[in-house]
Amino acid sequence: MNDLRFTKDVVDAGLASAMTLADQLATMQAADAVELLNELELDDTIGIIAEMPRDHAVLILDQPELHSAATIIEALPDAAACALLDAMSADRVTDIFHELDEKVRDRLFPGLGRETQAALRKLLRYPPHTAGSLMTTEFVSVPANWSVAQTLQYIREVERSRETVYAIYVTDPATKSLLRAVALRRLITSEPDVSIMSVGRDVAPVTVAPLTDQEDVARLFRKHDLLAVPVVNDGNQIIGIVTVDDVIDAMTQEMTEDTLKFGGMEALNKPYMQIGFLHMIRKRAGWLGVLFLSEMLTASAMQHFEGELERAVVLTLFIPLIMSSGGNSGSQATSLLIRALALQELRLKDWWRVALREIPTGLVLGSFLGLIGVVRITTWQMLGLFDYGPHWPLIAATVGTALVGIVTFGSLVGSMLPFILQKTGFDPASASAPFVATLVDVTGLVIYFSIALVILSGTLL
Amino acid sequence: MNDLRFTKDVVDAGLASAMTLADQLATMQAADAVELLNELELDDTIGIIAEMPRDHAVLILDQPELHSAATIIEALPDAAACALLDAMSADRVTDIFHELDEKVRDRLFPGLGRETQAALRKLLRYPPHTAGSLMTTEFVSVPANWSVAQTLQYIREVERSRETVYAIYVTDPATKSLLRAVALRRLITSEPDVSIMSVGRDVAPVTVAPLTDQEDVARLFRKHDLLAVPVVNDGNQIIGIVTVDDVIDAMTQEMTEDTLKFGGMEALNKPYMQIGFLHMIRKRAGWLGVLFLSEMLTASAMQHFEGELERAVVLTLFIPLIMSSGGNSGSQATSLLIRALALQELRLKDWWRVALREIPTGLVLGSFLGLIGVVRITTWQMLGLFDYGPHWPLIAATVGTALVGIVTFGSLVGSMLPFILQKTGFDPASASAPFVATLVDVTGLVIYFSIALVILSGTLL
Repeated sequence: MNDLRFTKDVVDAGLASAMTLADQLATMQAADAVELLNELELDDTIGIIAEMPRDHAVLILDQPELHSAATIIEALPDAAACALLDAMSADRVTDIFHELDEKVRDRLFPGLGRETQAALRKLLRYPPHTAGSLMTTEFVSVPANWSVAQTLQYIREVERSRETVYAIYVTDPATKSLLRAVALRRLITSEPDVSIMSVGRDVAPVTVAPLTDQEDVARLFRKHDLLAVPVVNDGNQIIGIVTVDDVIDAMTQEMTEDTLKFGGMEALNKPYMQIGFLHMIRKRAGWLGVLFLSEMLTASAMQHFEGELERAVVLTLFIPLIMSSGGNSGSQATSLLIRALALQELRLKDWWRVALREIPTGLVLGSFLGLIGVVRITTWQMLGLFDYGPHWPLIAATVGTALVGIVTFGSLVGSMLPFILQKTGFDPASASAPFVATLVDVTGLVIYFSIALVILSGTLL
Repeated sequence: MNDLRFTKDVVDAGLASAMTLADQLATMQAADAVELLNELELDDTIGIIAEMPRDHAVLILDQPELHSAATIIEALPDAAACALLDAMSADRVTDIFHELDEKVRDRLFPGLGRETQAALRKLLRYPPHTAGSLMTTEFVSVPANWSVAQTLQYIREVERSRETVYAIYVTDPATKSLLRAVALRRLITSEPDVSIMSVGRDVAPVTVAPLTDQEDVARLFRKHDLLAVPVVNDGNQIIGIVTVDDVIDAMTQEMTEDTLKFGGMEALNKPYMQIGFLHMIRKRAGWLGVLFLSEMLTASAMQHFEGELERAVVLTLFIPLIMSSGGNSGSQATSLLIRALALQELRLKDWWRVALREIPTGLVLGSFLGLIGVVRITTWQMLGLFDYGPHWPLIAATVGTALVGIVTFGSLVGSMLPFILQKTGFDPASASAPFVATLVDVTGLVIYFSIALVILSGTLL
C-alpha cells in the first residue's frame, strides 16, 4: 500500500513521466497495478498503458477490475489496440467489445487476427449470465491417440497463447467428441510414452452447455472442486472452457444482485459512488413505488374497520408492533428458503414438507411473542404506567392471539414465496424482505381486527 | 441422474450387496457418488465405504459434502480409519477431527502416521473463518538453487501425497523464507536446466497470514485470480496453502450466513431439513424477541399521542403505509451499503460522502411516494370512495410531508447502519432488514405525529 500511495503522489505532483511509472508498474502484481491505475485520471492511464511493454499492457487489460478498459482501447491507435486485443484472453476481449460502440467495433474488427475474430464471432452471441458468456475459447485439446510426451510437447508450443492450462481435453480423433479431462499435474507424473487416455481416472468429464446458467455452473464448480469446466455443444464437442476465476467473479456478482434484490431494489451494475444520481433513483423508485401501492391496501383495510377503530382507539396502539412481527418472521423464513433452494438442499416438490415445518414453528414463535405482549400489557396496567381501560384483559388476549396468528401466517407466506417464484419461472432470490412484509401487513391487519371482533364483541366493539 | 436413481432403488430393494454398489460408485464422479451415499441409511454407507478400495474411499471421504463423515470414520475399525485418515488431505482430516468426540480423537490419534499427526497438531489450533482453518499443509516447496528439472522430478515423487499441485513455492535455502510462486504450466514450458528462480515474472507472491479472515482471503483470490495462496508465518516461511475450492466453499457459506443475517436471524450450520425443531426455534426466536421488544417502543410512542389519536382517528389509517415506506427505503440503502463495503468500493472514511448522497436520494424518493399518497387521498375523496372529513386537504398534506421526512430518514439510517457496525467492530453484513425497519418505525411515528401536530393544529388537533 505504501508503494501505491507513493506512486500516486508522484503522479499527482507531476514528477514522474508516464514512462517511469510504466516501469514501476511492471514490478507489481497486475491487480495492484490496476488498483493504482483506477485512481488516476483516465488520460494518464491511457498514456501509461501506451508506454508499457506490450506483454505487461496485456496483463493489465486482462484484469476485469480495470475501469474503462473499453475507453482505453478506443483511445489507443488502432494498430496498437488490435495488437493488444489479439494478445488478450478471448473472454476479456468479448467483454470489452460488449462495451464498445458499434462504430468502434466495426473499425477495430478488420484489424484483428483471424483467431481473435473467430472467437469474437462465437462469444459475442451468448447472452449474459450463461456459461457461453463466461467461457474462453483458449483451451488445450488433443486427440486420444496421442502419447503423454506428444501432449507435453504440444502444451509447450501453445502455452503462451492459452490463458489457462489447468486441464487437457482429450477428444475422439474421428468425431472430435470429448472423452476425458486430464489434469496437468497428472500429466507431469505419467510416463512419457503411455497413451494420454491412460492418465487419470476413467470417468466421464463434467461438462456444461453454452446456455447453462452461471449459477448452475458455479454449483458444479463447488460440487466437483473444478478449476475449469469444458463447454460442449450438442455433439459433445468442446467449444470453450469456463475457468474458476471467472466463476468466482460471477458468484460475487450474483451475491451482490441477490442482496440488493432481497433488500427490495433492482440490481446495479456499477459501484455505489459511480452510479449517476438519476440512475440510482430509478433503480430504487420502481420497487419502492410498487410496494407503496400494495401497502395502500392497508389503508383500505383500516378504512373498512374505521367504525371499530373509533370505538376502540386502544387497538391502534398495537398495530405497528403486530404488523412488524409478521413481517419479521416472514423475512426470516424467506431468507432461509432462498438459500435452501439456491444450495439445492430442497427441491420444488419439498414445499409441503417446508409448510408442515413452518406452521408449528410459526405457532411456537408466535406464542412466544404473544406471551411477551400479554406480559407487557398486564405489567403496564398493573404498575399504572398506562390505562388500557376496563377491558384490558380482553385487549391483552386480542394482542396475544393476533400475534400467534400473524407470526404463523408470516412464517408460512415467507417460506412459500421462494417456492412460488421458482415454480413460476422466477429466481427464488427475487423475493425481498420488504415484499414479504407488505404481503403479510395487509392480511395481518385483517387477522388482527377479526380476532378483535370475536374477543371484544359485546364489550368494546 | 437416472443412474443414481437406479442405484438407489437397487439398494432400497435389498438386491445389491455393498460390494457391487462399491464397484458401481467407483465409475462415478466422486461428488455424484457422495450425493448418492447421502441419500442412503448411514449403516449402508458405512458398509459400502468399508468395502471400497482404499483409494476410492479416500476420494469420497475427502468431499466436504459427505454427510456424517465423522460418524463413518468412528464406525470403522480403528486401523482402517487411521489408514484412510492418513491418505486424506490434511484440511479435511482437521474438519473431521473437529466433529469427533474428544474420546474418539484420543483413541484414533496414536494410530495415525507422524505426518498426519503433525498436520493435525498445527491445523486444529486455528479458529474457524481464518486462513489457517481453511489451509492444508500439503504443498510443494523447493529451494531457490534447484533447477526446473530437479523440481519436476521432485513433483513426480510427491504428487500422490499432495492434494493440489497448482503452484510450486520457491524458498530461500538458508532462511526458508518464501521467494516466488511458480505456476505448474510455466514449469512445463521452461528449459529443464535453468534455475527455478528464472521461471515466471519476478514479482513477490501474494500471501496471507494464518489469522487472515476468510472473507479477506476470498477477496485476494478474486483480485489476483489465484488458484492457491500460500499462508506464511511472521518469518515469511510458508506453513500451508489455501486452495480455490475451499475458498469457493467458504464464499458460499458466507453468502448463506449473510443472507440469513440480513433476513433477521442467526446463521445456521446445517441444511434446513436437517436442523432440529427446537434448534430452529432458538435461532429465530432470539432476534424475533429483540426486534419485538424494540418495536414495543412504537406502542409507547402511540400511547404518548393517544389524545391526538382519539381526536383524529383518520390519522391511524396511514400508519402502516407510512411506517413500511420508511422501512423499505432503509432496507434498500442497507443492502446497497453492505455490498459496497464488502466489495471495498467504499471505506469507513467515506461515510459522509454516502450520507450526502442518501439525503437528496431520500428527499426525491420520499417526494415521489408523498405525491402518490396525496393523489390517492384526493382521488378517494373526490370520487366519494371514502370520506377523510372536512380537513382532507390538510390530512393529505400531512401524509405527503411525513413520507418525505420518513423516507429520507430511512435512507439515511439504513445507509449509516453498516458503517456504524463496521466502525464498532461488527460485520456490516450483520445489519438486517427487520432491524433497520424497527429502527425507522419508532422515529417514523414520532415524525408523523409531529408533522400532524404542526399542520392540523387548530383544526383537527
